[in-house]
Amino acid sequence: MNTALEDNTEQITDLAAQVGRALQAKGWFLSTAESCTGGGVSQAITEIAGSSEWFDCGFVTYSNASKTELLDIPEAEIAQHGTVSEEIAAAMAEGALANSNADVTVSTTGIAGPGGAVPGKPVGTVCFGWSVGHHTHTERLVFAGDRRAVREQTVIHALQGLLKFLK
Amino acid sequence: MNTALEDNTEQITDLAAQVGRALQAKGWFLSTAESCTGGGVSQAITEIAGSSEWFDCGFVTYSNASKTELLDIPEAEIAQHGTVSEEIAAAMAEGALANSNADVTVSTTGIAGPGGAVPGKPVGTVCFGWSVGHHTHTERLVFAGDRRAVREQTVIHALQGLLKFLK
Repeated sequence: MNTALEDNTEQITDLAAQVGRALQAKGWFLSTAESCTGGGVSQAITEIAGSSEWFDCGFVTYSNASKTELLDIPEAEIAQHGTVSEEIAAAMAEGALANSNADVTVSTTGIAGPGGAVPGKPVGTVCFGWSVGHHTHTERLVFAGDRRAVREQTVIHALQGLLKFLK
Repeated sequence: MNTALEDNTEQITDLAAQVGRALQAKGWFLSTAESCTGGGVSQAITEIAGSSEWFDCGFVTYSNASKTELLDIPEAEIAQHGTVSEEIAAAMAEGALANSNADVTVSTTGIAGPGGAVPGKPVGTVCFGWSVGHHTHTERLVFAGDRRAVREQTVIHALQGLLKFLK
């Protein structure tokens, strides 16, 4: 049962090392804003020795209140778009950039399951944001698998997106 | 090589489930303030389905600046005691309590290695804080093993301490 777990763990560590090298090459710092991954992205980034040279901080804004209080996302915006939306993913990435000393940020918000599905947003739906300066890119994907699989694929895609964003 | 990894992953998930049940029984919310674990504690807590009913938010304050900006820990206090100290672990747990909607918090700050050792604080030194209301408990331990092993043992001890604190 743990082959996929091992494979994902190794892929995540390898990607985090690549992201670290890319950040260090630019002299940039990263911050994260995570909902559905719950700290999985920052955990991966800081698995790499020396990551204090490129990682500033992470906001694990699991409750809606914390998205408002820590990342300055208006309650009305969350109510309008729903927590799992590209709009809120963008606001999370931009909020992390505004409230930290980072040069680049990544955000995740999604439905890891098994509950939480809403019409038009099945379990596995995840929205991502990557923000640098005045530019924010968002994506919306649907991953297959159980809660752990959805969260691990989300961490992998967040890191892969960071790599693209840094190139 | 991955037997220890699997064992720790299973133990962490089991502990996180126990913590979730203990929080839910009290109707309490948890927030975290992590340095050396980089989000590993909040990642574990949110691995459990339904954790939005007992987890508010996590502060991954990896840089010293973020400890000051997000958790209101004065720079002078960090300079006086050092980042890896029971004093700063207490301040992190109390800062997370003050800056979130949680009833109880846990903090981690340590030297995961391979670098970072200072006189009197070898690699593997980790300080913990648990805070509720006006009471904060701290501990200082030294774990053996590589960076991953130190971080995983830190997550395990943080969760075990939470369980004791909730009983």
